[in-house]
Formats: sequence, C-alpha cells, structure tokens
Amino acid sequence: MRRLPEQEASSRLEKLQQIIASMGADACVVTSPVNQYYLQGFLFDGYCYIRPEGDPILFIKRPSNITGDRVWPIRKPEQIPTLLLEAGLTPPQRVLIEADQLTYSSATRLQAALGMPETGNISGELRKIRMIKSAYELEQMRESARVHAKVYELIPSLYRAGMTDVELQIEIERQMRLHGSVGIFRAFGENMDIFMGSMLAGDNAQAPSPFDYALGGAGISPLLPLGANGTLLTPGTTLMVDMAGNYRPYMDDMTRSFAIEHAPDLAYKAHQVSIDIHKAIVESFHVGTACASLYNMAEEMAKENELAPYFMGTVQQAKFIGHGVGLEINEPPVLSPRSKETLEPGMAFALEPKFVLPGIGAVGIENTYIVHDDRLENIILCEESLICL
Amino acid sequence: MRRLPEQEASSRLEKLQQIIASMGADACVVTSPVNQYYLQGFLFDGYCYIRPEGDPILFIKRPSNITGDRVWPIRKPEQIPTLLLEAGLTPPQRVLIEADQLTYSSATRLQAALGMPETGNISGELRKIRMIKSAYELEQMRESARVHAKVYELIPSLYRAGMTDVELQIEIERQMRLHGSVGIFRAFGENMDIFMGSMLAGDNAQAPSPFDYALGGAGISPLLPLGANGTLLTPGTTLMVDMAGNYRPYMDDMTRSFAIEHAPDLAYKAHQVSIDIHKAIVESFHVGTACASLYNMAEEMAKENELAPYFMGTVQQAKFIGHGVGLEINEPPVLSPRSKETLEPGMAFALEPKFVLPGIGAVGIENTYIVHDDRLENIILCEESLICL
Repeated sequence: MRRLPEQEASSRLEKLQQIIASMGADACVVTSPVNQYYLQGFLFDGYCYIRPEGDPILFIKRPSNITGDRVWPIRKPEQIPTLLLEAGLTPPQRVLIEADQLTYSSATRLQAALGMPETGNISGELRKIRMIKSAYELEQMRESARVHAKVYELIPSLYRAGMTDVELQIEIERQMRLHGSVGIFRAFGENMDIFMGSMLAGDNAQAPSPFDYALGGAGISPLLPLGANGTLLTPGTTLMVDMAGNYRPYMDDMTRSFAIEHAPDLAYKAHQVSIDIHKAIVESFHVGTACASLYNMAEEMAKENELAPYFMGTVQQAKFIGHGVGLEINEPPVLSPRSKETLEPGMAFALEPKFVLPGIGAVGIENTYIVHDDRLENIILCEESLICL
Repeated sequence: MRRLPEQEASSRLEKLQQIIASMGADACVVTSPVNQYYLQGFLFDGYCYIRPEGDPILFIKRPSNITGDRVWPIRKPEQIPTLLLEAGLTPPQRVLIEADQLTYSSATRLQAALGMPETGNISGELRKIRMIKSAYELEQMRESARVHAKVYELIPSLYRAGMTDVELQIEIERQMRLHGSVGIFRAFGENMDIFMGSMLAGDNAQAPSPFDYALGGAGISPLLPLGANGTLLTPGTTLMVDMAGNYRPYMDDMTRSFAIEHAPDLAYKAHQVSIDIHKAIVESFHVGTACASLYNMAEEMAKENELAPYFMGTVQQAKFIGHGVGLEINEPPVLSPRSKETLEPGMAFALEPKFVLPGIGAVGIENTYIVHDDRLENIILCEESLICL
C-alpha cells in the first residue's frame, strides 16, 4: 500500500485536528475518495475516523489487504460505537461529516449508527486546508504540467484535414493515456460531469450546458451534453482544447486555441487580449490581491477591447475567469466578481479568460499559476499563440 | 433539445406518479442526471418537480436554452415556494427526494427552501421503476450490444506481443470512442469509480480494490486503485476484458477472456464452467425464478468442479454473479445469495460468473440477458470461447 511521506501526512492531519478542536467536535469522519487520499495516501470503502488528538482510526469495509494497528475491519457503520467502546473510547457527541460529498442516505445512516450525535459539515474546511499546497504537492503539479505540455505539442501532428472535433479529441485522449493519464479526474460538486476534458470547435463553443464549467458545448449524447459534438474542423474557424492535466494525483489545468488553416483578425485580436489579461494579472500581483479584483481587471480589459459580448461565452456567460486546482479540478479560490478570497502563498490556480466569437469559435489560453511570496509562477510552459493547424 | 418519445415519457411519469400518490406525498423532486434523463430525455441543473397529477414543472438554473411553458427559470431553490404560490399551487407538505443521490448539504438546503416539509426517499422506487424496461429501452440495449461486439472482435488485431494490459486497453478505448462511446458511464452508489472499464491480466486479477465491482485490480494510480496496472501480457496467462458497453444511453455489459498465446488446462476448464453456468441458467429459466437461486446454482457448479476457491475472486470474493443493467451499470435485480428479487419480463441483467486462477489470471464470460415471458434472450452475440491472442 502506497503511503504519503510522513511529514506530509502529519502536517495535513495536524491542520485538520486544529479545525476539529476549534469546531468543538469529538471526531471527524472522512469518506470521500479525494479527502481519504489527502489524509492517508490511499482509498478504501469505509470511514477514516479522526479525533482532535492522536492517530486516525481506519474503519475499513474493503479492500481486505489494508492492515495495521490503526485498521479496524468492519462490515457496516453500526459496528463503530461498539468497536470504540471496546478500545476504551467514547462514541462522539459532536461529529463532523463531509456533508457536501456524502449522500443524504449515507449521512443519516452514519449519524444513526453513531447514536445520533450532533453533526457539522467539514467539507468546506477541508477544501480550505487543501487550498494551501506544500512544496511536495506543488512539485507534482509542475510534473503534471510538463507532461500536459508534451501532449499538447503533439496536437498539430495528430490533426488531419477533414477531421471532426470528436475524431481529433480521440487521438488526443489516446496520447494522454499513453503519457500516463489515469483517465478520470476529480471534481467537486454535483454538476461537474465530464469525460477527459473539453474540445470546442466553431459555433459549438456557444452551446450552453447544464454543467458548471467555464464553457459548454452540445456533446454527443443527451446523457453528457458537454464539449465536442462532431463539428467538422472547418478552415477559418477555431478550436479550443481544454483537456485534463491529470498526470499525477495533483493536477494542472491548461487550455490552448488553434486556427483551422486560418482565422479572421477578430480571433487573433481576442486571443491576444486573453494573453494580455494573463500578463496584466501576473504583473500586478502582490500577496493579498483580491480574487474579485482579478475578475474585474479581466472584464474591464474585455470591455476596453470591445469584446464584452464574447467574454466567457455568448448565450450563457460564465461569471468567473479562474479557479484553484489540485486534487480536484475546481478548488478554492474562485476568481469571480463576488469572491471574498485573496491570493496567498501556496495556492495554485488556473486562469482562463476566454472569448467565444460567433461564426468563428472560442479563443484564449488557460495557464496554471503557483502563488509565491513575491510572484506568480506560471507552470505551463507551452506555446501560447493561436496556433495554425 | 432532444425529447423522449411521447409514449415513453407519459408511461414513465405515470408510474412515478402512482408511487408518489401511494407514498402520500404532494411532490417528488428529481435532480440526478440519470433520473432526469429517464423522465425528460435531457439533463439540466435544477429541479424536476413532479406532483401526483399533471405535468412536471422544470425549475431550471442552466442551461439557458431550455424553454417551454413547463420551464420555470430559477437561480436558487429558495425561489421555488414563491413561484409555486404565484401559479396558484401550494408548496408541498410531504416531498420525496433522491436521498441516495443528493448530497446531505443539497438535500437539507432543498428541504429548508421548501419550508421544511416532511421528506421521503424516492431513489429506490425510481430504481424499481427503471428495472422493468420498455421495448424502446431494450432495443437500445441490443443496439449497444451489437457495437460492443464489433469492438471486442477487433481485440486480436489490436494485440501485439510485448504489450502491457494498459497499452492494449488504450487501443480498445480508442476503438470504443471511434464506435460512438461517450466515455463516461453511469453507476449507482458511492463506491463505483471507474474509467472506461476493467482489464485484468495475470495475477493483477487477484488484487482487491475498494470499489463495488465483481473483480478488482491494482490500477495505475492511488486515486483510482482498480483494473489494469501495467502488467506485461505474458504467454501462459489470461486477460479478462470487461470494458463498458455505453454506445447508447441504455447500456449492455459484456466480459470476454483471452489466453496470451496459450494457457494451462485449468484456465480452459474454468472458462468452460462459466459458459456452462450461463447455459444452466438459461435452460432452467422461468418467470419468477429467484435471483438468489441463480447465485446458488452457480456457486454449486463451481464447487462441483472444485473451483470454489477461485469463484468470483481469491483474496476478496464478490458475493454476486450478476446485476441489472440499463441507464446505470448496476441496476436491480442483483444475483446474490441474499437477493429477494425474482426474474420478471422486461428486466435486463448481466450474468458474470468468473474465476480467478492464481498464477494464471481471470477467466469466464459475461453476457447481458433480456427477460421475456418464456425465455432469456442473450443480446451479446460475440465469440464465447477462451480466445487465443
């Protein structure tokens, strides 16, 4: 069983235990895959039971091959109180659960199994802890970004005239997998269905979707109305590639845009404004910058360049230009007009000012930045211009 | 916006409305993608509000392009009671929610937004309704199975000596996508993470996983410990291919096994026992057969053939040999020793008696059957023998 480096595991646990104590709880139960991985370094079906002090107890249903003195095999949550009592521990009076991840049925069953303690929600606090990354975590994001760039550099060689968006996406997916992508990637929330990323060609970039991504696309199935829809890659239009950077447990995020043979001047102009927004945000950076002010700066630059109607969509416009990234693709902070967050050292965020041009397609770039004391580090080292296919 | 055929939509709605009435509720709120698709034929971010009589009301946050007189745009659930009152409708006193799908946070927010009505859980009842398929649904499953078989027939031509399980899987994934697979597939429950399916080579078939699938596999990432793990496809071992049959909204499920160049006699023997279990179950079928008795028959045949230690795993043995399939890969009924369900016309289920042989690998087949009045229809028309690569 792979484990986390000792220093990582203890530092993460300590931060969570401080929160548990400050929220006046006796225990916190972690059940979601991402947070189990964050705290333990592996996944299991069961309950990671964390007290304000001491080692976590792992109540594990499966797999059967995880062992250790902190591992207590169980079949069902109703066994937990008895096992605690047998070990001389009191079942909790106030317990924190992942209320944003657990289903209502699982949460109420767990609460009943524990003898109906008071409950609180730890989901948001765990997201806040995960928002500030360690050097170990950030290095994984740089590694992922390096592989991501290698895959994107192959795109011109994968393209052939007469392809559809879906056909090109399939060849990119194959290269992603050959370069170590695990396939799925993790997202927070109930409206984040996606396959391996999004490719938007021509006017499909205008199609609104039910999901909480920056842009939409009609997709190829009513069960996944998002992304590529079979649009022929047509000379004079653009293609936006926003495929996952999931080459390590910690991810990066990157978008690049392509002109099919050629594109109108407006596409080059809007693409340059996206690059200029990145530059302006990098240059104006200081620790404590309000995330809302970054959104406002980008929106202002879109307006000055008479691109407001195309900013972050047309039919449906996203009200954010960036988001934290890590084990999940959508972590805090969010770069939106109503965000109360500020940029702090150890954060990592994707910046994606994009334009959707009717009759042409989507343009703009997305990079992932690490926040340092004195600067933003762009970890995406990949051609930024509107690349001709 | 694609819609369901009128007859499908009205028949599904009617079944749900009978349940709502019989559960003494004023309304049912459907929010999960699969059940929204089942009732409406499309997905949206919002609330499908169903009363015991009359048309559903769609409270839609996004996308913005769904319109109609039953569509009421909203920003947040707190607007629902006012909108109901404005239309002369009383907010519900007792409401059914999808408690097995909604998060605890979303469920409690919705309950508060509706003025704290009593709540009940509709998840299980919707699964029971979906368990009995219409001719329209079953025909989609046959179509999916035909494409699935075409893709599996390509496997010998995709294999090259010296490949790993992951390398071959990537080529199969590419063919799946070229044949119309949407990529993701839908599953019920909180322990069903997977990418496009499972490939198990050699002793990796013994690795237990945290997830609720028949077999495990170590996987290539601690964030997805399941399936192929980079095992070299070695002569004398076997490869089990259980990739998704998601070529329509309604799915089929199929497993086939392969010998790498050659395999020991035990592999051929156990594979034949799996085929014999299929035959015995098909031949003994009558409407009303208890699902538990099918499990027992299979287990008995494994014992008679001295294969009990290898039946459905070694280190961790699954206690089921089949499951319903439809919009989700794991629908009722379940073919397990404790199942209370019986086979009824309109059901569709996957049957997967498998053996894991130490030092060799997994063998056996999985077919999908439709239950008719007088017979089981095998919709998987694809070579069943242990195929040599």
